[in-house]
Amino acid sequence: MPVLAAPLLDALIDRALDEDLAGGDLTTEACIDASARATAKAVARGPLVACGGAVFLRVFQRLDPEAEGEALVADGARVDTGAVLWTVRGRARALLSGERTALNLAQRMSGIATEARRYADALPAGSGVRITDTRKTTPGLRALERYAVRIGGAHNHRDSLGSAVLIKDNHIVAAGGISTAIARARARAPHTTKVEVEVASLQELDEALAAGADIIMLDNFTLADVKVAAARARRSQHGRPLLEVSGGITLERIPELAAAGVDVISVGALTHSARSADIALDLAL
Amino acid sequence: MPVLAAPLLDALIDRALDEDLAGGDLTTEACIDASARATAKAVARGPLVACGGAVFLRVFQRLDPEAEGEALVADGARVDTGAVLWTVRGRARALLSGERTALNLAQRMSGIATEARRYADALPAGSGVRITDTRKTTPGLRALERYAVRIGGAHNHRDSLGSAVLIKDNHIVAAGGISTAIARARARAPHTTKVEVEVASLQELDEALAAGADIIMLDNFTLADVKVAAARARRSQHGRPLLEVSGGITLERIPELAAAGVDVISVGALTHSARSADIALDLAL
Amino acid sequence: MPVLAAPLLDALIDRALDEDLAGGDLTTEACIDASARATAKAVARGPLVACGGAVFLRVFQRLDPEAEGEALVADGARVDTGAVLWTVRGRARALLSGERTALNLAQRMSGIATEARRYADALPAGSGVRITDTRKTTPGLRALERYAVRIGGAHNHRDSLGSAVLIKDNHIVAAGGISTAIARARARAPHTTKVEVEVASLQELDEALAAGADIIMLDNFTLADVKVAAARARRSQHGRPLLEVSGGITLERIPELAAAGVDVISVGALTHSARSADIALDLAL
Amino acid sequence: MPVLAAPLLDALIDRALDEDLAGGDLTTEACIDASARATAKAVARGPLVACGGAVFLRVFQRLDPEAEGEALVADGARVDTGAVLWTVRGRARALLSGERTALNLAQRMSGIATEARRYADALPAGSGVRITDTRKTTPGLRALERYAVRIGGAHNHRDSLGSAVLIKDNHIVAAGGISTAIARARARAPHTTKVEVEVASLQELDEALAAGADIIMLDNFTLADVKVAAARARRSQHGRPLLEVSGGITLERIPELAAAGVDVISVGALTHSARSADIALDLAL
Amino acid sequence: MPVLAAPLLDALIDRALDEDLAGGDLTTEACIDASARATAKAVARGPLVACGGAVFLRVFQRLDPEAEGEALVADGARVDTGAVLWTVRGRARALLSGERTALNLAQRMSGIATEARRYADALPAGSGVRITDTRKTTPGLRALERYAVRIGGAHNHRDSLGSAVLIKDNHIVAAGGISTAIARARARAPHTTKVEVEVASLQELDEALAAGADIIMLDNFTLADVKVAAARARRSQHGRPLLEVSGGITLERIPELAAAGVDVISVGALTHSARSADIALDLAL
Amino acid sequence: MPVLAAPLLDALIDRALDEDLAGGDLTTEACIDASARATAKAVARGPLVACGGAVFLRVFQRLDPEAEGEALVADGARVDTGAVLWTVRGRARALLSGERTALNLAQRMSGIATEARRYADALPAGSGVRITDTRKTTPGLRALERYAVRIGGAHNHRDSLGSAVLIKDNHIVAAGGISTAIARARARAPHTTKVEVEVASLQELDEALAAGADIIMLDNFTLADVKVAAARARRSQHGRPLLEVSGGITLERIPELAAAGVDVISVGALTHSARSADIALDLAL
Repeated sequence: MPVLAAPLLDALIDRALDEDLAGGDLTTEACIDASARATAKAVARGPLVACGGAVFLRVFQRLDPEAEGEALVADGARVDTGAVLWTVRGRARALLSGERTALNLAQRMSGIATEARRYADALPAGSGVRITDTRKTTPGLRALERYAVRIGGAHNHRDSLGSAVLIKDNHIVAAGGISTAIARARARAPHTTKVEVEVASLQELDEALAAGADIIMLDNFTLADVKVAAARARRSQHGRPLLEVSGGITLERIPELAAAGVDVISVGALTHSARSADIALDLAL
Repeated sequence: MPVLAAPLLDALIDRALDEDLAGGDLTTEACIDASARATAKAVARGPLVACGGAVFLRVFQRLDPEAEGEALVADGARVDTGAVLWTVRGRARALLSGERTALNLAQRMSGIATEARRYADALPAGSGVRITDTRKTTPGLRALERYAVRIGGAHNHRDSLGSAVLIKDNHIVAAGGISTAIARARARAPHTTKVEVEVASLQELDEALAAGADIIMLDNFTLADVKVAAARARRSQHGRPLLEVSGGITLERIPELAAAGVDVISVGALTHSARSADIALDLAL
Repeated sequence: MPVLAAPLLDALIDRALDEDLAGGDLTTEACIDASARATAKAVARGPLVACGGAVFLRVFQRLDPEAEGEALVADGARVDTGAVLWTVRGRARALLSGERTALNLAQRMSGIATEARRYADALPAGSGVRITDTRKTTPGLRALERYAVRIGGAHNHRDSLGSAVLIKDNHIVAAGGISTAIARARARAPHTTKVEVEVASLQELDEALAAGADIIMLDNFTLADVKVAAARARRSQHGRPLLEVSGGITLERIPELAAAGVDVISVGALTHSARSADIALDLAL
Repeated sequence: MPVLAAPLLDALIDRALDEDLAGGDLTTEACIDASARATAKAVARGPLVACGGAVFLRVFQRLDPEAEGEALVADGARVDTGAVLWTVRGRARALLSGERTALNLAQRMSGIATEARRYADALPAGSGVRITDTRKTTPGLRALERYAVRIGGAHNHRDSLGSAVLIKDNHIVAAGGISTAIARARARAPHTTKVEVEVASLQELDEALAAGADIIMLDNFTLADVKVAAARARRSQHGRPLLEVSGGITLERIPELAAAGVDVISVGALTHSARSADIALDLAL
Repeated sequence: MPVLAAPLLDALIDRALDEDLAGGDLTTEACIDASARATAKAVARGPLVACGGAVFLRVFQRLDPEAEGEALVADGARVDTGAVLWTVRGRARALLSGERTALNLAQRMSGIATEARRYADALPAGSGVRITDTRKTTPGLRALERYAVRIGGAHNHRDSLGSAVLIKDNHIVAAGGISTAIARARARAPHTTKVEVEVASLQELDEALAAGADIIMLDNFTLADVKVAAARARRSQHGRPLLEVSGGITLERIPELAAAGVDVISVGALTHSARSADIALDLAL
Repeated sequence: MPVLAAPLLDALIDRALDEDLAGGDLTTEACIDASARATAKAVARGPLVACGGAVFLRVFQRLDPEAEGEALVADGARVDTGAVLWTVRGRARALLSGERTALNLAQRMSGIATEARRYADALPAGSGVRITDTRKTTPGLRALERYAVRIGGAHNHRDSLGSAVLIKDNHIVAAGGISTAIARARARAPHTTKVEVEVASLQELDEALAAGADIIMLDNFTLADVKVAAARARRSQHGRPLLEVSGGITLERIPELAAAGVDVISVGALTHSARSADIALDLAL
């Protein structure tokens, strides 16, 4: 259940298999005997953070319910080139037909975990600052990608439009101002949800502080302005809100931002620009 | 219908919306009046090849059937920073709630089209060589990604395990040799489908040539061996097969590979490592 | 979009129609001419809070895309016996075949809105206390029922296990104590989400206060203990958390609980015990 | 298979789990170790008729295929406060994450079974009269609710618009009279299906008798008129049809209606107004 | 709505389109301009009973929502070779890509309607005997096939295992005899449903008559035994049940069976052995 | 996996079961004890080619996961009347409730396999000519029907519009000629896919030969013209393409067409006109 509840994961995998196998597997059905069995090893072809072992195995089990496998490294482990991540044993046909789907999923998950790890490692030692993802995930794979972010040592932002409030510029314009927008959102949202507001200037920051926002996102602030914002937030009479920076974040900027007094650094690139990790499947018939 | 038959595209979009909107949109429902209307412009924040205009618009129309939009540039157009790609007008709530889903899809499609364009442009002028994708696509989004590849000027490889034969090392081992594998696959596959075989050495190339493969994939061949292979293929007594190179392809190697006598260069990176294009949504209430 | 994003609502309605119409409508197909048109009025047969006008209409539009309707009263309006709530005009077959499904949905939504209204009205005038629902909703209809709760003047609690933290007794036992459980949950959960903990005694309350819980749920507390808890929370050195009471809440207890210093009263009965409102469909051919 | 064919039940449960778990279970994942196991007991918190043991268990098995359970009482058993109904043992995470969904379903089923039992018990001893449900069921849960009705000792009415004919006032108007409507419906419907007609007066009853209806529903008849109707039906020259009464049925009226000579008393309240039974889950880690 | 409720028909069509178009339409996308429009005519290539005009059109509308069409002959019309059945005008791509799916559905429906017409026409003029289908329908297409049976002048048997009782030999054995089986089934089934029992001999017929079956199916009876059965049924003291014959029915036997005193002749061949009607699509660009 | 990947087959079966069992099985639930077990044998009631053993068994396993079965004959075996094909043992309720669905699928598959066998056997001994199916398959069952064609000794044509190019008259008209159409299609299609063009005359054949089509379909050619076409194809300077004949193919014409020099004979009747094989289920309680 860590990645996704079992029937939801199965549904996701089945849609992926349908893309590749609705018309059968011409080659495998022709060349591989139905009763043949095989063993496959997923091998890292570069340094990476492993992620998705359970998803990888489940793909094969959907095709061969008796397939069995093992994770030689836990999700989150950093491995070097050549490391064997996961093994699976079952019908050779299932291994060959499921190979691409299993790798497509696991490579993407490991790629994101690896990227998240890089950002998390860029934080100063002992820092309480969080690197988080955004909603810039691949449609249909959000749950898997958010899991990979956590596995890589970063954190999740809100998972959907229904689970937390994030007031942006257009919401503010439509509502007639920051304090009205916050008041309306607080009235609508569950009391279990914080209210975050995105601000584009120090003046908007002041309004958000005065309105008692729970979280304030500093959008595309200069480092200097981030520091000013942090100072003002500390002195706020409405309780210090969480400060989040966003926009144009690069790996290089993580240390200085973390030192500037913010709590959260949200990074779209964790999911929208991560490259798939390079993992190969070595199959022994 | 160019991207995907309408009801299949709708199903894909609806699954994406379900991820983000199953619990509603707390912020938008609170701040935006139900009757408010707005206009949104998708703006390139970097040079890119536009792709996915119809998908972008359709996301909003699923939320507001009366939303209307326009593509200011056709799919495939190269645009610079600041170019307005697509506009959409409709209920403000639909535009705000659909923004992320529409962008997630269109940014990925444009990112792949941009990457494909780079590879296609690296071919010598007038070259008949094809850059193609592979099956290393995002699970659930294969049809969209393959469309983006074409829009970027590259070509598609087989779309699934059921639409063409590609015999790999394990198939060869299991079948007991290249010629047997080819014979079996040809017997199983529709006559409308070519038979491709992957070879790892010049010796295997000779076997594949002798066995009359329609396409031979040179896997991780050196440039020198690619040239030898091309020469042998030209002289083959079984008719010259198509030659495809694969494995470790980088943008820099495209010109030399194209000049070495191959027909197809397949590049997994077109889809598994493309970064989402940077596109912003400017919304006017 | 206020109830549920359009394609998600359609999917829900289609499942309901499938239950009733997969085998056709023997009676209507036999007795009603395919071209006949009719008008239907939804009429309150008792005092109620109207809810679900858009859902009601949409059922008929799924069967007859050209059906048109009007809400004579807005969702949330209190009406008396005989009030006409909504009208719809379209093919007579669609109105007759969709009648039961439309009413089943709208009656349930109006029943819950009516019940929520009763609880909300039991709060002292001007009270800032919230009545909220729980996750004790009808499987498959949660979004509709939560909407009805809001329409009736009450509020929503977290909508799912993924959108907020609520630590219960077993979580505490497994984690080894309240402060550990809170720390772990805060580390795992998005920063946009509050951390709520359920306590069963004043001693546990003190632990939760010390641990800095954002929300503390007083489970089955006596009124006296609720008051003690409110006093202690006000004096907490970690900032005053929100206080929620739950368990054995009846309409009669609302005033005294609201006066005892809590912020939220969560009431499972809003959804699990609401009776469907009595609404009839008057149809004129 | 008594409740619903296995894959259909699984699909229903999976939709329910998707509502609650699509975003994971923040609290459980944080506090409960993945390998921890636990045992849960479903305990009646009031007198009730148990119903839904198989559904209850199946929810947990969808999350943990190795979960095992036992029904300590059979569906239909009347139990008192404190009775243990069902137990389940499995991964602690699965038990905690599935708890609410399992209870939401089983409490509703037990609530309906309990209500059905009350009505069935109100019949005179040895009565051949049937209490039946109606199509006023919860959209998406009809099969479960109809099962609960049977478990409670009542009976099912037709399960959908396609499985039997029930001619109502508008059908009669459109068809041009009762006898025409019956003739048309009989021509359209399978010969395996009876033809029922709803009448609003003794005059309509006579027409329905003359037309040879298989079942006549007396809609909102006074007790006196019910008796007259029963007498006329007994003397009918076209064979005695079944008589059903409907509309405004309360528990108190059951004995007199049963004694008045009818065969069937249909009660919408069995499903649309049943309160969920009070069942708690006691969990031991 | 006559064939199937709109959203249920759309779902069926979409699944069919997914089979053919998930990978696009290589030929049409290459050769046909996206803006080209065309007109298509469905033409009978042999004498047939037209059926499925609405389904035929709907396939194209799923691909091109603005496609418009017309049925030149109503469902049920007998036409000769060369008759134009239906026309549709819309995007040329949609017409070409949808052609096969539309024809596959309409040809099957018309084939069944034609076969049903042959059987219905074999009944003596003025006969009240029904030809009915069975549950031997194509999985996934039952609603369409049952509609075609009606359109062809035959009738439907029960549509599913849940809509009527049909007691067969194994049910009788398990229940311990015909009368017990009937009693149990009547107790379980809605009062709106008749109870049918299949008998294999005159002795079993007598038991079924004595037990008051509503319908008795004479399974593989000789013509002589059918006549005896009819006579006994007429004299039954429990009211004359409907008599149905089944098993080994051919077109040639219809007149003699109809004359032998039965009410229903059920013919599996209507659906399981009907050949698709020959219909071509003439397309004008 | 030979028929269809496991989760895709399950989805297909579940849709079929939903048609028959959404409302339960009134008769079986009433007459058969929940714990009763039984054995069933599928018996051929005529000579046939067995096909679908795995599908047959899987239907029952969806209803009773512990059901076990055995195929006494392999798919493709020719059997005579009375042969036992498959057996299954499990809960009696599952066997009775699943019987019709299992038979509907297996009878259709065996019917097609039997028909394919007849056509394949009509080929001269040692002939290299292929009999193939077409896309005239039952919507929703294409994968099963194509499997049955192969099992019967015939071959598959392209499986969908996305897996190969087949240029027909309208494509030619729209593209402006055969050579343009071929060029466009080759540019669009994957290099793994052949390009087939349908020609209606010897003149069009010459154009197709000149344009280098991979496959040429001779549509409704006379035998004499087929021979001329074969001769011209052999002499083509662009390499000999495959020749396919189509249109008006009957069993009687197979030998002469096979002898006329073609490679492929495509026969729509294999799927659109095959009768279900006659298979009965003998059940022992």
